[in-house]
Amino acid sequence: MLSLDKVFNAQTVLKNIIRETNVVRAYGIAPDCELYLKPENLQITGSFKVRGSAYKIAMLSEEEKKKGVIACSAGNHAQGVALAATKNNIKSLICLPDSAPISKVEATKGFGAEVCLVEGCYDDAHQKALELCNSEGYAFVHPFDDENVIAGQGTIALEILNELDDIDAIVVPIGGGGLISGIAYTVKQIRPSIKVYGVQVAGAPSMYNSVKEGEIECLSSVSTIADGIAVKKPGENTYALVKEYVDEIALVTDDEVASAILALIEKQKMIAEGAGATAVAAVMAGKFDLKGKRVVAIVSGGNIDVTSLSRVIDRGLLNSGRSTSMLIELIDKPGQLKEISRIIADCGGNVTGVHYEKGNTESVNGCFLRIQMETRDYEHVNQITKNLSDEGFKLV
Amino acid sequence: MLSLDKVFNAQTVLKNIIRETNVVRAYGIAPDCELYLKPENLQITGSFKVRGSAYKIAMLSEEEKKKGVIACSAGNHAQGVALAATKNNIKSLICLPDSAPISKVEATKGFGAEVCLVEGCYDDAHQKALELCNSEGYAFVHPFDDENVIAGQGTIALEILNELDDIDAIVVPIGGGGLISGIAYTVKQIRPSIKVYGVQVAGAPSMYNSVKEGEIECLSSVSTIADGIAVKKPGENTYALVKEYVDEIALVTDDEVASAILALIEKQKMIAEGAGATAVAAVMAGKFDLKGKRVVAIVSGGNIDVTSLSRVIDRGLLNSGRSTSMLIELIDKPGQLKEISRIIADCGGNVTGVHYEKGNTESVNGCFLRIQMETRDYEHVNQITKNLSDEGFKLV
Repeated sequence: MLSLDKVFNAQTVLKNIIRETNVVRAYGIAPDCELYLKPENLQITGSFKVRGSAYKIAMLSEEEKKKGVIACSAGNHAQGVALAATKNNIKSLICLPDSAPISKVEATKGFGAEVCLVEGCYDDAHQKALELCNSEGYAFVHPFDDENVIAGQGTIALEILNELDDIDAIVVPIGGGGLISGIAYTVKQIRPSIKVYGVQVAGAPSMYNSVKEGEIECLSSVSTIADGIAVKKPGENTYALVKEYVDEIALVTDDEVASAILALIEKQKMIAEGAGATAVAAVMAGKFDLKGKRVVAIVSGGNIDVTSLSRVIDRGLLNSGRSTSMLIELIDKPGQLKEISRIIADCGGNVTGVHYEKGNTESVNGCFLRIQMETRDYEHVNQITKNLSDEGFKLV
Repeated sequence: MLSLDKVFNAQTVLKNIIRETNVVRAYGIAPDCELYLKPENLQITGSFKVRGSAYKIAMLSEEEKKKGVIACSAGNHAQGVALAATKNNIKSLICLPDSAPISKVEATKGFGAEVCLVEGCYDDAHQKALELCNSEGYAFVHPFDDENVIAGQGTIALEILNELDDIDAIVVPIGGGGLISGIAYTVKQIRPSIKVYGVQVAGAPSMYNSVKEGEIECLSSVSTIADGIAVKKPGENTYALVKEYVDEIALVTDDEVASAILALIEKQKMIAEGAGATAVAAVMAGKFDLKGKRVVAIVSGGNIDVTSLSRVIDRGLLNSGRSTSMLIELIDKPGQLKEISRIIADCGGNVTGVHYEKGNTESVNGCFLRIQMETRDYEHVNQITKNLSDEGFKLV
């Protein structure tokens, strides 16, 4: 059974393993409320996950520790288990689908785990891990549905309560529900007046649906840039805890998440992964009633690969009108590009890409001009569009 | 005259204005030494600059404060002065060339300054600021060559010495020299055994050249992604202090800076601007003898615009072999793309862009294929190149 004692015990046990991340005041992200961030992206391994796995592993019997632990994950959980096992001087084996990206495999090995690549998908790897548990006697470390794992995540709440007085609300990402279960349980025991809000992505609303329907639902598929919380089915324990202790759950879109990642970069000089930015996304998009409130948003992790990051930045710029792409239908005659360039330059747009292509234009002599540019905001984009139209150009 | 008393006094004065940034242990960035970062990118306004300007402003007479302050800058100094003036309830006027990016103008206004846009370049804006000083009686806040500004920056050294014992070296970016003057002076008074190393970029080596030549040199032009330290001429005071207290200065290239920005993102989940990443770049590139040493690198600022960031990430990926672009000369016949795609896929490369173009090929029927892909490292790139060559494709 989960208890407050366990959470306090976890805090002591974790002392020399994890970093105590300090909340930071975030200016300019959500002007309507007094927003603080709990930056678990700055946690060792780049995510809060190490808290739960380290406490789980520390609580194993000596017998179990001798045999080692096993987990199945291609992400933050794998790295958390690997580091926690290494710090406890025990063996860890991580099962991964053989399609897992090399970088994740290397990171997991880097924290001292052995890696077992399993042919097939995540479910195959999970199956293999359970088999190895039975045959070799490894202890299985569940990514969320385990009371010690949940108690470990609850230490985040203790740190927040210790750092900040008079908090009105804490906003927390939800995947399987381990993080929010630990935080909500702990907060409601100590300071029940504080609201605990959960956030899922629209592409993976398993806990949201389950709570709404009143029973655990399993999604057939998930699709989101917040891969860290793309969980098809909540846990038994986490579902029960969320139902009892969480005040409200909201969904955010991938575009809202991208805007939050961008805001964290620009305003806080901080990298969050998709899942890690969902709580901030919900606050920015006004999903909860937080006006004038003192709010803590958990930034749960920062392990985004730079290739995705580059894409997210581009998307975020597009979403905020700071870059734009226009398709213009032209009659193919000399001087057209000159005219268009002049109009854009006069408006202060900065052209970054030009591409001509033939296509199914009205006139046989027609062609399409795709033009990319940096802009200030939507108003600026509209101004340029209007000026082009006014001078007779046909935007598609 | 600069004195240790002034630096201690600055620490007291700045207490309620700035954030005391905590050093963080950086793993995996420079395996040869025990590296810590002083994250002034997380400082309020996103840069250390606010320390110097806030102390300078606090030390003005009541008479001077009534008239207000003026500064000339399109970057971190402007925001520092604006915030410091606002916190001291005095007026600030920032002169900017009218070509300054809107975002910088808005940010400066956001911290409470009035902005005076001056036709022309930076030098014109600087000239205008000096004129307004004379005609209106504003106090001029120099970005670096001022003892109170230098004393303010020196508070960084006090914080580091307070946080960490047994430091062997501190590595510091140099633009005009205010930051390193404050740090080196303070460190050498208190703990002279600690080495203080300075870093400039190869595209703006004003202090490096000056120290080497033994007299202040003025560069005719500067060119670097580290625009925050693109300074043509060191100050009189800073030059003298650097000559006396700094142990060594090294230069880093823009590519080394890009790699450092990328490493800070991936390993520390932290955004640094070009200038802010130069000290880390020097440590990574082995510019100083730091093997086995306990080292603090100052990450001086994080105000990079996201468009540049996107470009830096792309450059960093290219530099580390994690993305690549190949130009292949083809005879234009069916099935060529299929073959090439197969070879790349068999090697595990992930194609992200394909572009055909006519060009000056050997055969009239020839064409060029530009193909972009994500790769693991240089070895991987070489493997793909070799396999394509082995199967008869001609890489240009």
